[in-house]
Amino acid sequence: MEVFSFHNPTRILFGEGQIHELGHDMKLDGISKCLLIAGGGSLKENGAYGQITKSLSNAGITLYESWGVQANPTLDKVREIVTLAKSLAVDAVLAAGGGSVIDTAKAVAAGVYLNDPWHAFTEEEKVHAALPIYTVLTLSATGSEMNGNAVITNSETKQKWGMFSPLVFPRLSVIDPSLQSSLPFKQTANGAVDAIAHILEFYFADDKAISTLAINEALMNTIMEMTDRLKQNPKDLVARANLAWSATLALNGISGAGLKEGDWACHGIEHAFSALHPEISHGEGLGVIFPAWIEYISEKEPSRFVRWAKKVWNEDNIAKAVRRFRDKLQSWEMATSLRDLGIKQNELPVLLDMIMLQPEIGGVFKLKKEEVRSLLMLAF
Amino acid sequence: MEVFSFHNPTRILFGEGQIHELGHDMKLDGISKCLLIAGGGSLKENGAYGQITKSLSNAGITLYESWGVQANPTLDKVREIVTLAKSLAVDAVLAAGGGSVIDTAKAVAAGVYLNDPWHAFTEEEKVHAALPIYTVLTLSATGSEMNGNAVITNSETKQKWGMFSPLVFPRLSVIDPSLQSSLPFKQTANGAVDAIAHILEFYFADDKAISTLAINEALMNTIMEMTDRLKQNPKDLVARANLAWSATLALNGISGAGLKEGDWACHGIEHAFSALHPEISHGEGLGVIFPAWIEYISEKEPSRFVRWAKKVWNEDNIAKAVRRFRDKLQSWEMATSLRDLGIKQNELPVLLDMIMLQPEIGGVFKLKKEEVRSLLMLAF
Repeated sequence: MEVFSFHNPTRILFGEGQIHELGHDMKLDGISKCLLIAGGGSLKENGAYGQITKSLSNAGITLYESWGVQANPTLDKVREIVTLAKSLAVDAVLAAGGGSVIDTAKAVAAGVYLNDPWHAFTEEEKVHAALPIYTVLTLSATGSEMNGNAVITNSETKQKWGMFSPLVFPRLSVIDPSLQSSLPFKQTANGAVDAIAHILEFYFADDKAISTLAINEALMNTIMEMTDRLKQNPKDLVARANLAWSATLALNGISGAGLKEGDWACHGIEHAFSALHPEISHGEGLGVIFPAWIEYISEKEPSRFVRWAKKVWNEDNIAKAVRRFRDKLQSWEMATSLRDLGIKQNELPVLLDMIMLQPEIGGVFKLKKEEVRSLLMLAF
Repeated sequence: MEVFSFHNPTRILFGEGQIHELGHDMKLDGISKCLLIAGGGSLKENGAYGQITKSLSNAGITLYESWGVQANPTLDKVREIVTLAKSLAVDAVLAAGGGSVIDTAKAVAAGVYLNDPWHAFTEEEKVHAALPIYTVLTLSATGSEMNGNAVITNSETKQKWGMFSPLVFPRLSVIDPSLQSSLPFKQTANGAVDAIAHILEFYFADDKAISTLAINEALMNTIMEMTDRLKQNPKDLVARANLAWSATLALNGISGAGLKEGDWACHGIEHAFSALHPEISHGEGLGVIFPAWIEYISEKEPSRFVRWAKKVWNEDNIAKAVRRFRDKLQSWEMATSLRDLGIKQNELPVLLDMIMLQPEIGGVFKLKKEEVRSLLMLAF
């Protein structure tokens, strides 16, 4: 088992109705002026907005609002909110939404202390301070509610890049699974695949972290079982809750303990898909690239993939397990090829160039440009 | 899934040689005078003591020392160290040892701010402050390196009681599994059973926390597999590392998420065994009472025990799973009855009275005095 460090200071309040604690807890932390960061109107439809304003108002916290964060959130929006946050001199941000909203809030929280928030992503400046971040999660997928990661797209340069800082772990995240009851199944499934992909980025990194591998198998199996249940019945609150908690654990440090830094080739590749075509959802893109990546890498180094085939799919054969994985995605009505995603063959060279802008593709199984090209063909 | 909160701010440095980071990290936290709390000389034999003094000395931290904490640590020792810590005016405690040492350090850290450290256990005083706690773990068992719990025995009243406070989570714990390479197998197995028992205290509390149940099965299976490997080869560092991390996760909040507060009847009962006979190890006592408890409770409410039989033992039948559990303990040369532990039948009434001193036996499956008596007979 590799040497590792683990530190996750985020407090979690999990369960129906837990938003009502939020204002009280923020007040205890000394917050008095807070900027709500949110996406579209679903926050008002699912009842979260009303609960938030009530809880903060009861605690005497002044709430300002910034709406309109979209999927694959942009640097332009981050810059706009940084300006607002500075002019209002808020002492905290409250992200209410899914990963896009939370990532935007993180970039804002760190960005108010930088010359340009994009510098946190290019590492031109070191993140040295951040506003306290609170979150109310409305879509389980990215795990951003309990980690120090954020991914933002620079529309100008078409770079969809990530940052990490211990300073942008949320102070407190409320995970109320009942807020997700009215999500279209498509979004639920995208979130589930995103969570599975986070686990897979770590899973093949080292066969000696047996405890973490066993936990990761438990999480993958639970996520798939719960997603199947939600396809049958979107109101199944037990399935909703277990999917939500599994997705949080999929990227809060637990799933990566002893597994180096993970691989992240598939995330790097997928970010190019959705940077080129912002209508492609991150989860769906990952569902296309990951089975292809497993096929491609396992041919060279089968041993680590045999355990996955056995423990997750109960198959003795990697090829059969990959087929079962694709069948599962299809049963959730998700794309299983680049073509399905709407990517044209003549876009592959552009995609390849965008992917190769990153300093490295794959932390464990490093891929050269020729190999990424072959992988894209396989996924096409 | 029940409403729950999760917050675990302890930093973990895991792996061989990680002690060398300790002094640097303590210095960053502003520590300059620290009291080492330890047990016997094994700390010098396994090399940890030399690494600790070097790391702290390099960081310019003054180190005082208090040795002699024993298994089933006592209030007398806590009071003695509180007096020392106050007179030295240290600004942190560093526990280097197993759970007994860490629990003592927690009672000391909180105790220096109380009229009497025992009041943290009787709740006569609220824990309102604590010295920062650092730990170097040398025996994986109690999980105390990453939680806010401590158990101390009041020899005068024969009460072995627990406390919890968010203020006594260690700031930083170093888990270097190689320090455990020279442990006798008996101690390794006791630690493994303690960790399994922590998981079992939560496992049967609610069948709706499917994600946590699946993780707990992964942890129990890993702990048993690694312990079997260590019986064959105590120098198996991969097994040692995975056992260590699983034992930490067994009581750091992950294993209990969505499972209420757990049951804890077996811990309450076992504490009486080792309060009456301090030579009984906590793990061995738990290994005797838990299978009997499962037999006893599952007769009344079989449904939650069927999953355990299936997922952990691959058995369709609870009785067979309990038999397999006892066989496993026997294969580790552990006691499987109160008689094996050296308890005499004529001591059962005294034990029963000691157990019933606690306000409640069992948080989920509440046991009356008559039921505890039957359970003791079954375990005898």
